[in-house]
Amino acid sequence: MSREPILHEGPDRLLESMAIFADATRSPRPGILLFPNVLGAKESDFAYAERIAALGYAVLVADVYGQGRRSTRADADPGRYMNELNADRVLMLARLQSCHAALRAMPQVDASRTAAIGFCFGGKCVLDLARGGADIAGGVSFHGVYDAPPFPNAAITAKLLICHGWNDPLAPPDAVTALARELSAAQCDWQIHAYGDTGHAFTDETVHMPDKGMAYQPDADRRSFKAMTDFLGELFPA
Amino acid sequence: MSREPILHEGPDRLLESMAIFADATRSPRPGILLFPNVLGAKESDFAYAERIAALGYAVLVADVYGQGRRSTRADADPGRYMNELNADRVLMLARLQSCHAALRAMPQVDASRTAAIGFCFGGKCVLDLARGGADIAGGVSFHGVYDAPPFPNAAITAKLLICHGWNDPLAPPDAVTALARELSAAQCDWQIHAYGDTGHAFTDETVHMPDKGMAYQPDADRRSFKAMTDFLGELFPA
Repeated sequence: MSREPILHEGPDRLLESMAIFADATRSPRPGILLFPNVLGAKESDFAYAERIAALGYAVLVADVYGQGRRSTRADADPGRYMNELNADRVLMLARLQSCHAALRAMPQVDASRTAAIGFCFGGKCVLDLARGGADIAGGVSFHGVYDAPPFPNAAITAKLLICHGWNDPLAPPDAVTALARELSAAQCDWQIHAYGDTGHAFTDETVHMPDKGMAYQPDADRRSFKAMTDFLGELFPA
Repeated sequence: MSREPILHEGPDRLLESMAIFADATRSPRPGILLFPNVLGAKESDFAYAERIAALGYAVLVADVYGQGRRSTRADADPGRYMNELNADRVLMLARLQSCHAALRAMPQVDASRTAAIGFCFGGKCVLDLARGGADIAGGVSFHGVYDAPPFPNAAITAKLLICHGWNDPLAPPDAVTALARELSAAQCDWQIHAYGDTGHAFTDETVHMPDKGMAYQPDADRRSFKAMTDFLGELFPA
């Protein structure tokens, strides 16, 4: 399994993403763009990417914040880089598109067969990339955030799978039904998998804040990983 | 593949269910109770049951109406037998439990490893059997109907997978969120898979009434079948 940092010029600053792929797999292969959670690209993303790369895909863990701009839960304001993008969804989309271009430029990747996945804020990145009309076969959001940008969607051609913890305080039932309405109006191919007894961050083994509605949930983690692999298999039949 | 009618005494009348199993599979094996749609047990249910039996399960297509009591869409009142049960959820539960007992009595079935699936009104049967505290490992509802009985649930020990067409006129978004609230309050293990651009009856190749929100939808049919097989595999590891 190889890891190679990829430096690429974003719309406003240099981005440092991480390419992850199995050396033995035949190239070109389908490429998966992985959008990290609020903290930015980190080891747990690289480890998750290796699980996906082991299935025969090439993965780019996307840097949407800029080289050197990462945070930790111990920071005074872990959300500072995310908030910058949330406040400017046009800039955010341009960064996402830059990351998608970097994925497509990887020598291991078949540029005509790509998809995106993401966690938490990264789930919103998946949705915004699709809302922007990106040429991706599909997208998977894990415990994402669903508010639409303050401008109209492009035609959404990506198939979308939204894996959702029903008790997620960042996306209460009204936000889920609003997303369903939005995606139905866009006439795209969408699925929402809602998991009971599950809050935010259910894929993240390091999170144990049940009082805040955020905690690892092994059933939802296992089921959503399986749903994603089924979905990728549908997008990219062997 | 064998088909054997099973006559069994229900709480108020004789029931005629249909056992379906592959002859070559080792017994006892996990047993799946299949609740048909509004029309009652018929050939399309037996055909679906054979797909499940081919996966290594023994299936009982449940008769919840009574021997000889079936309807067709051409009838003046196709829902007459269903309405009888909807009006008496206590009787309905007793019929469901009788069918579950008949499944467990099949010589091919390991009585400690059973689950239930159902379509349309049969999805409601799955939920009511679980709400009644049945000792089933899990239940899968396809385009079911979600209104709870007018009496409290027993402790729900079954894991539940609800496969739902978002545009289903029989179960609008409010009914879905109400079901999620009910199952969350019951603290059971549940999932709801909602499919966009999908109405009622999405598994039924014979239904083409898009103006009534009821139509076969091949994507949702294929994905829900896959979700069910993944789910059964989780309940009954090989």
